[in-house]
Amino acid sequence: MAVNLVAPEALTPVAGVRWSTVDAAIKAPGRDDIAVAWLAPGTSTAGVFTTNAFAAAPVTIAKRHLAGGAPRVLVINSGNANAGTGMAGERDAMTLCEQIAGDCGLEPAEVLPFSTGVIGQRLPMTRMAPALSHLCADTRDAGWQAAARAIMTTDTVEKGASREVDLGDGRRCVITGIAKGSGMICPNMATMLAFMATDAAIPEPDLHDALVAANQASFNSITVDGDTSTNDAATLSATGQGVVLDSTDTGWPAFVALLTELMQELACAIVRDAEGATRFMDIHVRGAKDIDEARAVGYTVAQSPLFKTAAFAGDPNWGRILAAVGRAPIDHLAIDGVDIAIGDVAIVAGGQPRPDYDEAEAAAVMARPEFTVGIDLGRGSAETHIFTSDLSYDYVKINAEYRS
Amino acid sequence: MAVNLVAPEALTPVAGVRWSTVDAAIKAPGRDDIAVAWLAPGTSTAGVFTTNAFAAAPVTIAKRHLAGGAPRVLVINSGNANAGTGMAGERDAMTLCEQIAGDCGLEPAEVLPFSTGVIGQRLPMTRMAPALSHLCADTRDAGWQAAARAIMTTDTVEKGASREVDLGDGRRCVITGIAKGSGMICPNMATMLAFMATDAAIPEPDLHDALVAANQASFNSITVDGDTSTNDAATLSATGQGVVLDSTDTGWPAFVALLTELMQELACAIVRDAEGATRFMDIHVRGAKDIDEARAVGYTVAQSPLFKTAAFAGDPNWGRILAAVGRAPIDHLAIDGVDIAIGDVAIVAGGQPRPDYDEAEAAAVMARPEFTVGIDLGRGSAETHIFTSDLSYDYVKINAEYRS
Repeated sequence: MAVNLVAPEALTPVAGVRWSTVDAAIKAPGRDDIAVAWLAPGTSTAGVFTTNAFAAAPVTIAKRHLAGGAPRVLVINSGNANAGTGMAGERDAMTLCEQIAGDCGLEPAEVLPFSTGVIGQRLPMTRMAPALSHLCADTRDAGWQAAARAIMTTDTVEKGASREVDLGDGRRCVITGIAKGSGMICPNMATMLAFMATDAAIPEPDLHDALVAANQASFNSITVDGDTSTNDAATLSATGQGVVLDSTDTGWPAFVALLTELMQELACAIVRDAEGATRFMDIHVRGAKDIDEARAVGYTVAQSPLFKTAAFAGDPNWGRILAAVGRAPIDHLAIDGVDIAIGDVAIVAGGQPRPDYDEAEAAAVMARPEFTVGIDLGRGSAETHIFTSDLSYDYVKINAEYRS
Repeated sequence: MAVNLVAPEALTPVAGVRWSTVDAAIKAPGRDDIAVAWLAPGTSTAGVFTTNAFAAAPVTIAKRHLAGGAPRVLVINSGNANAGTGMAGERDAMTLCEQIAGDCGLEPAEVLPFSTGVIGQRLPMTRMAPALSHLCADTRDAGWQAAARAIMTTDTVEKGASREVDLGDGRRCVITGIAKGSGMICPNMATMLAFMATDAAIPEPDLHDALVAANQASFNSITVDGDTSTNDAATLSATGQGVVLDSTDTGWPAFVALLTELMQELACAIVRDAEGATRFMDIHVRGAKDIDEARAVGYTVAQSPLFKTAAFAGDPNWGRILAAVGRAPIDHLAIDGVDIAIGDVAIVAGGQPRPDYDEAEAAAVMARPEFTVGIDLGRGSAETHIFTSDLSYDYVKINAEYRS
């Protein structure tokens, strides 16, 4: 079902990052469902996490451990979110950190746990603990692609991307990242799970700034269903095996630009693989007073069930776009400044339908699997892109049957 | 498909209100699609209208006319919303007001127009104008039930309710109302269309206060899909044919209480008849700091696609309720104060799953067509009820095929 999305052909290894994967039969046996990233000594890591008040146990612990110092291990399981599990869930996550730390001669605080899957069930510790026990001694590298597969839940395609950054003066670094997610997607900090790494050496504060900036234009600009997950997390690690870089470097803008591009590719991959998606849409809002206003309008349209079902049908029912813009939580919108277009077909100008509007042309655009909805508010110069999917029978089917 | 909803057996006439209905073939011939309410001289009327910035042409005109004085005629068409039609749409609506006023010896400003149906198409004036021409002279009373049928769009059951109010001292008055709506339902002032009348004589300011208060607990407490319509409007007329009443009267609280009850019945009828609905749910939020907070949490749960699809499946996937509560736009929610129940089955206590929780019991509740979701935030004494429906295949089907 994924819209214009195929698995990455190859992901560039990042010196200083090694991946292990293992089958712990967390939800069902038959696939690797734990991925462990081993980070070289000296790696700095930045993270962003869900703003959901019911943050899952692993989110709580990962945030605490990340605040305490530089992690050496990321341990990620799919099939169970360890969310809504209370203190028992936190103890389970800590037990896993302690086990890995003990096996590997590390402190528990050097291990960051991540979980994704069903909410409200305890982790199957009796299966997970044995599965993790041999990993520390195994020096093979399963690679980024295997890790991307291991962290999938309802994803149908693994998601990863690589970039090589030209920092000038003959200096280069690589960035590789993986992500998972296809439902409960409306990140309000980061979305679901994404793990990026570069071989450059970057101080943690600069790394964090770069992650936050790139995150706003990528994982924080997508929505499938408006449901912000309890488990959203994204990390960016700099292993320090390559060039030394910080925010004063002339190559820094290039690094941030390509990091943003890579994270946008991963974020859009989540939307392309959204539960039941048949269309990928870029809600491009322009002419806003400020970026918050542009985002509010973009999200209101992107989350409108009526717009999303019309998109599923390929029906240029632009009245639903107009109605969504009109109810967006922004102040004093003057409708006579609003223009709306689907693809390159102008529909509404100055708040009124254009006399030359041809519905057949708009229908032809909406018959495509991928198109842009252009909204110009006509009262400022801020703009943004919000990426979203349609609402199909299969979205309902997948989410009605998720636990059965 | 409607959930526990049948058409009203009888609606009590209100002295001073007469209804005409007529088939103008607005969307298709074969049913009456215009209803006209004739209000006796001396009737006072209050109204509440959509907050959508793209308010439809009839909303703009009805608000203007209502501000100018007491209306004598309400003219309501289904099949076409006359929204997103710009200045041409306003001229169409005014033309209809002028025609009716001319036929009946009234001022155009004494006519309030209302429209509901598809957005973005001009009214079929060549069919509507002739259909309206004979109505003024026809003194038959089609009755409230026929009017309720004429204003339906995707509604499957007409919606109406009556109450007799005991005002004390042997005084009584009646209230009767009708409503329509089943999609694009997330009122932010009034929802869709609802018309109530009483035979009491009530000054307009008091009538307006009563309407606003009752509206908050009824039409402003329901959601089907989070999409606030461009055409929402509700009016309350007091014909003055019966008792004289104002807000200082000892019978006033009884009047407001029964008005609220009647409007809740109409509002819940809209949810019961929601597009594709198979379940009717009362999201009961308690323990909030204030009513705004309670409403924010209730709406976040009621509009969560993941909660709504789980409800469709009858799946007590309470993690989705918890995740929705956690992302609600309220400040500093301490999850260890939160309790969640489905019907009388307690699930979460103090933010953690209860050890005695029995999923089979919760599944039995959710197998019913109607149940309550109880959410106690544990940090205050404000509470509210938000009424909503599930998200089914048929919701997608109805909205993907609406215009075809």
